[in-house]
Amino acid sequence: MRTQIVVIGGGPSGLLLGQLLHRAGIDAVVLERKTRDYVLGRIRAGVLETGLVKLMEEAGVADRLHAEGFVHDGTQIAVGDQMFHVDFKALTGTPVIVYGQTEVTRDLYDAREAAGAPTIFEVEDVVIHDADGDHPHVTFTRHGHAQRIDCDFVAGCDGFHGVSRQAIPLDVRREYEKIYPFGWLGVLSETPPVHDELIYANSDRGFALCSMRNENLSRYYIQCALSESTSDWSDDAFWQELRRRIPSDVAERLVTGPTIEKSIAPLRSFVTEPMRWGRLFLVGDAAHIVPPTGAKGLNTAASDVHYLFEGLRQFYADGDSEDIDRYSEKALLRVWKAERFSWWFSSLLHVYPHMSPFDLKMQQAEIAFLRDNDAQQRAFAENYVGLPY
Amino acid sequence: MRTQIVVIGGGPSGLLLGQLLHRAGIDAVVLERKTRDYVLGRIRAGVLETGLVKLMEEAGVADRLHAEGFVHDGTQIAVGDQMFHVDFKALTGTPVIVYGQTEVTRDLYDAREAAGAPTIFEVEDVVIHDADGDHPHVTFTRHGHAQRIDCDFVAGCDGFHGVSRQAIPLDVRREYEKIYPFGWLGVLSETPPVHDELIYANSDRGFALCSMRNENLSRYYIQCALSESTSDWSDDAFWQELRRRIPSDVAERLVTGPTIEKSIAPLRSFVTEPMRWGRLFLVGDAAHIVPPTGAKGLNTAASDVHYLFEGLRQFYADGDSEDIDRYSEKALLRVWKAERFSWWFSSLLHVYPHMSPFDLKMQQAEIAFLRDNDAQQRAFAENYVGLPY
Repeated sequence: MRTQIVVIGGGPSGLLLGQLLHRAGIDAVVLERKTRDYVLGRIRAGVLETGLVKLMEEAGVADRLHAEGFVHDGTQIAVGDQMFHVDFKALTGTPVIVYGQTEVTRDLYDAREAAGAPTIFEVEDVVIHDADGDHPHVTFTRHGHAQRIDCDFVAGCDGFHGVSRQAIPLDVRREYEKIYPFGWLGVLSETPPVHDELIYANSDRGFALCSMRNENLSRYYIQCALSESTSDWSDDAFWQELRRRIPSDVAERLVTGPTIEKSIAPLRSFVTEPMRWGRLFLVGDAAHIVPPTGAKGLNTAASDVHYLFEGLRQFYADGDSEDIDRYSEKALLRVWKAERFSWWFSSLLHVYPHMSPFDLKMQQAEIAFLRDNDAQQRAFAENYVGLPY
Repeated sequence: MRTQIVVIGGGPSGLLLGQLLHRAGIDAVVLERKTRDYVLGRIRAGVLETGLVKLMEEAGVADRLHAEGFVHDGTQIAVGDQMFHVDFKALTGTPVIVYGQTEVTRDLYDAREAAGAPTIFEVEDVVIHDADGDHPHVTFTRHGHAQRIDCDFVAGCDGFHGVSRQAIPLDVRREYEKIYPFGWLGVLSETPPVHDELIYANSDRGFALCSMRNENLSRYYIQCALSESTSDWSDDAFWQELRRRIPSDVAERLVTGPTIEKSIAPLRSFVTEPMRWGRLFLVGDAAHIVPPTGAKGLNTAASDVHYLFEGLRQFYADGDSEDIDRYSEKALLRVWKAERFSWWFSSLLHVYPHMSPFDLKMQQAEIAFLRDNDAQQRAFAENYVGLPY
């Protein structure tokens, strides 16, 4: 079997790249380790930057997003019992759209199937061969049968634990990492969201986030210790702790109910450089991870997709490899900005072990400066809605 | 002896307060532990915010400052071999003025003497009595003779090591502190400054600062270990290390010569709350210390002087104590902003022990964001030229 691009990973970045390539007349095969249902069962945040929304439009998959997504013109930041509003629309001209990552993925699968573009599910033992040569190929097994696809390029969209990054020799890779000393305990609940915007809350008991999927599906998170497990947290205990971390007038409005999902996620910052090795390109989580504070994960994967797609389109249009040669450099420039923002926003809101009273005062002063200073608020808003590609 | 205000400390903040009070017809006696010559022998940075310049004008001591000070419309920030300009004037409408703190002090002493306002030098064993009552008094000895001054209020302008802060009972004070794990080795040299603006340099060998007093008097600093002493550093070694920390084209223009002063200063952030106890007010370094990065020390003392002077003027004009009752709150609000800025700017530029490769990347990303983002640069500039009183 032969194709132009093998896309490893059928998550949102691989599918978005596949759809853009398809519409540009470039053939791609998407390989996914799991089933479609499994992929669509993953629950992920969904705050979409304008850049990602435009890519979805370019891929022809933005109708439902525009019909069902929630336009958020700003966000709320709470500190103790106080809360203030950052007006993205006024500060940058741009809102964000709240639309679940699962829905993004579903729309992309629907479009891919409607287009008849090939996705191979349940692949195992994926190996990338000769990525540093002119004729790469990918082998894998499916239901016990060995298969091989020859291609021009490989797009590694298979996430942090995927094989793509590991295919780049260790002496070529430079990796940067920060493990945060806490996690997020998140619940999903069929209750109306407590606020029509997200609330990022700094409290002396730790961070909390009030988020949402739709009018009757709320997503709440609280900072927890890495040693904790979901079995330590009854629904009642979760709601009680959440109430103590958000302003009391918000807590009074909080509608609680049984949680339909509960999970603990660690927080990590990670970047590998370079993001290209020969004919292999790393995209999204395969190359970089951000802590979820500020929702930059999917959005940063999307900017990778943009740079890679533009490079491949140029290459297939006129044989010019300049943009794919500069893919790693261009993608990383924006990746480090998103890493910086996610790291800074995490630092602003969480309680870290061993914070001195002075450190706590600096955190409070940083939040107060964000509340009070127009320029600082604009810099924040520009990052939140997404820096330009 | 009786006066309205006893000002403890004849440094720039005590003298500025004294001069403002004098012009408002309020009597003050300034007590200074050392001689005038000793005070004027201290070498301190001198980047004056507009707020301080306006206070100097209000005190009638700004003529020489305007004649001899250097108007800096911006500053240079270097990282490795690159350098970029932040244009304060364009971003905020306001420059800063480079004018040595020693000169500020000299102008204030000259004005104080011309006005015949009393300063008592070489006082020892200063004790503040009954600051929490209605009739405070201050005792001290001078050349072996015990003396006492009764007053309405005491202004503690005697610096970090002075007696004023210690006069507030420990159970009333809350203190916040950060000791930085490095110092600044500074030299003064009768050479022309390498640049007509200050250069703040981040390098992988540590921070450096190229500053100046006038056309033929330069002040340079390099980050050093706290364990080092000036005897470890020959002039040659200093110049060689400085050259390695600034962009090579700047290093080539550096004019070196014998140093006429060499010293190592530790870096500290410190705040005590409250800044008022009864009829005692803490002003400047007596209440708070910033690391020198960003030159906020004298400028933050000046905003304290402003708030205290306005409060005292109101009190003596109409007996209304509202502004002196709110002195601590108002002063601290601005103090914490300056503390945040100085801490952040220090974090941006120094090499800290135990920085991980990721931490270094975040520092680089933060500098790049400052270089590239208008809003971030504006927030920086607004802090540098001085947030409004």
